[in-house]
Amino acid sequence: LAIGDELLAGAHPDLNSPRISRALAEVGWRVYRVAVVGDRVDDITSRVLELCSDHDLVLVSGGLGPTLDDLTREAVARAAGLPLVEHADTVDQIRGWFEDRGREMPASNLRQALFPEGAEVLANKRGTAPGFTLAVGGTRLFVLPGPPREMEGVLLEEVVPRVRDDGATPSPRRRFFLTGLSESAFADAAGDWMGREAMPRMGVTAKMAVLCVHLTLDPPATEDALEERAAAFRERFGHWIFSESTPDLGQVVGELLLATGTEIALAESCTGGLVAAALTAVPGISRVFREGVVTYSDAAKISRLGVDPEVIDRCGAVSAEVAAAMAKGCARTADVPLGLSVTGIAGPGGGTPEKPVGLIWYGLHLWDQTGGQTRTFERRFPARGRAQVREFATQAALGLLWRVLQGSPEGGIDRADPISPAIDPPPGLR
Amino acid sequence: LAIGDELLAGAHPDLNSPRISRALAEVGWRVYRVAVVGDRVDDITSRVLELCSDHDLVLVSGGLGPTLDDLTREAVARAAGLPLVEHADTVDQIRGWFEDRGREMPASNLRQALFPEGAEVLANKRGTAPGFTLAVGGTRLFVLPGPPREMEGVLLEEVVPRVRDDGATPSPRRRFFLTGLSESAFADAAGDWMGREAMPRMGVTAKMAVLCVHLTLDPPATEDALEERAAAFRERFGHWIFSESTPDLGQVVGELLLATGTEIALAESCTGGLVAAALTAVPGISRVFREGVVTYSDAAKISRLGVDPEVIDRCGAVSAEVAAAMAKGCARTADVPLGLSVTGIAGPGGGTPEKPVGLIWYGLHLWDQTGGQTRTFERRFPARGRAQVREFATQAALGLLWRVLQGSPEGGIDRADPISPAIDPPPGLR
Repeated sequence: LAIGDELLAGAHPDLNSPRISRALAEVGWRVYRVAVVGDRVDDITSRVLELCSDHDLVLVSGGLGPTLDDLTREAVARAAGLPLVEHADTVDQIRGWFEDRGREMPASNLRQALFPEGAEVLANKRGTAPGFTLAVGGTRLFVLPGPPREMEGVLLEEVVPRVRDDGATPSPRRRFFLTGLSESAFADAAGDWMGREAMPRMGVTAKMAVLCVHLTLDPPATEDALEERAAAFRERFGHWIFSESTPDLGQVVGELLLATGTEIALAESCTGGLVAAALTAVPGISRVFREGVVTYSDAAKISRLGVDPEVIDRCGAVSAEVAAAMAKGCARTADVPLGLSVTGIAGPGGGTPEKPVGLIWYGLHLWDQTGGQTRTFERRFPARGRAQVREFATQAALGLLWRVLQGSPEGGIDRADPISPAIDPPPGLR
Repeated sequence: LAIGDELLAGAHPDLNSPRISRALAEVGWRVYRVAVVGDRVDDITSRVLELCSDHDLVLVSGGLGPTLDDLTREAVARAAGLPLVEHADTVDQIRGWFEDRGREMPASNLRQALFPEGAEVLANKRGTAPGFTLAVGGTRLFVLPGPPREMEGVLLEEVVPRVRDDGATPSPRRRFFLTGLSESAFADAAGDWMGREAMPRMGVTAKMAVLCVHLTLDPPATEDALEERAAAFRERFGHWIFSESTPDLGQVVGELLLATGTEIALAESCTGGLVAAALTAVPGISRVFREGVVTYSDAAKISRLGVDPEVIDRCGAVSAEVAAAMAKGCARTADVPLGLSVTGIAGPGGGTPEKPVGLIWYGLHLWDQTGGQTRTFERRFPARGRAQVREFATQAALGLLWRVLQGSPEGGIDRADPISPAIDPPPGLR
């Protein structure tokens, strides 16, 4: 149960509940429902009673602050039929928290030392509002502060150790992250593996260009069945699986660059630095990431990358020719073996019938002793707004790098799908 | 009601419900509860029935996809006591959607043409799953596809026009977006404007370096009271208000660059392209954004920006001297009047006692007839992980540009707060 008017007003998504779900799943608890209500005592009280009557374990976050719109302690006390009492140790701790910071304790913070009678206080090392836990009927109820860092601290340090031993054995599961396949093409290829009765259960979610596939086993099926299905899955979908641990394609590509010691330079136009930002998110990447240039203007493409102005005039800045020259230019000027370029039309303006918004050209230059070779790739993404075109174009650039770096030149990519940033692997490269 | 196992597993936050809340608030509907359940027919059915019995309007998102774990249509039909029937027009539309893209329609997509008998179909222009609406008892129930863009399209084009006239008159409100102030410094300065009894009501939320302040009026208070408070608010906080319409500091800075015709070049190290990405998110920015360079290596700082290798040796790459040289170098090589540089230690490794993770140096070069001047600024952000340091460093860079561009050189910024990326305005600049 997440509490806060700002959550209902749409000002913020509820990020605490997903965090709680993940922590509980790791110790074998399965979350069945999430509820969100505003800062109203009656609503909070009804929801607490309802959840406690339906479930073995209930976690509440939010509404423990010092201000008058923080009503969770009152509502929980009412749901449990208990009075609120002041907790002397907590008063001292809150006073100490302010003293450590050389500040006077505002009187309002004393409210944070009130708890339902008999509740156990849960230490909060990151703020002034402690959590607490009590039993409501046969249900264990935990109440946590709302600020995400404070919530997470109390969750991991105080709640998880108390519920760990009562969780079920976590369901064995495997995860796969794929790029280059659309969700529907995946569903067709997965067939009855995705059926409601299938064991292991298979679920799939899509986020931008990445598919996340879960395989989960429920008792009494054995772990052998999971391994067998996972092996078959790798057999069928190996061409698109870029990770079994992270959905972050930029991280996987960055680690491949590091593992292979491949120095790289980037030349971006429409993605405006997003590809560089994705790769530089990887710790240690400075060993192989030499430089990126965001050549937004024609002048920058000419001066920074040595693109021939005549080629820009003749073919336009968004063209195979310019993409090739940018890739070659960035690899050469940075003196690295791998150069990638992106040039396209992110919109909302600037599209034409021949070159619509969403058109992206990629260039890839691989240097070798004979001077290297340059390939270009065209993709057309749906014109769903500048931000989305840029994001897809970035993911596709990373997908292209991934396919080059893991050296899998065979075909079979779902080119027909307009969403997927699949790109034919560069033939002959590696 | 948001539906999806992935939401309960903590894989994704529920972003649809906040979007729905905002759209409904604009036409006068107030959201009282949000519920999240997984892909189980019984759970969905119970929740639909419960919400319909308590509320006048219920919106459901998710579970309309083509796969067998998409169960919302079955569950809603069951809750309404209606059979599912195939909708011929929808079958044609789905087939047409695939034909337009030169693809065979997978048989599984036919499931998306099933609706509870008598339901009105809601067009989805962005995908294959239409929404639908029907009455359950006295409640109006709308069911929307789960992918956020499809959901948003159906919400704004089909749902809002149908519920607009039945909403209450929206509460008059004003929003202010501030940078350079921490939430606690803001609360101290706002004083009793934030009290529970204050009218207009004032709420504040913080996201990274941006504070969003709402003023909302409830009847019977008059709009005059809102205007009066808004005017007083601008008086007190004008120094930090960068917008009354958007929390996107990058957009505001980009539009200021465009409005003033100020050409800019960037040189980024630890932010790795994030500042460039933020500015290039603004449509039309190519008029003033000449180029950015991501000079991750020392070699790139030297070759691309003309930084003196001796200065790097003597002062280190993260230093005022190198930040200054980078700013000057990027403005000069790009031949633009404004150059901004960022160099810092994003972590997790690379920190020392003198130069800890989170230390960032900024350089700002303003060219003029006499050769220009260069200033540097130091900030120290909490070492809360590489991603967060990079994000704070980016926001602070944008805040620095904003303060320069809107020409407000006076002081008064909350320097003491370690979180706020406030930076003293460059004295004498503009």
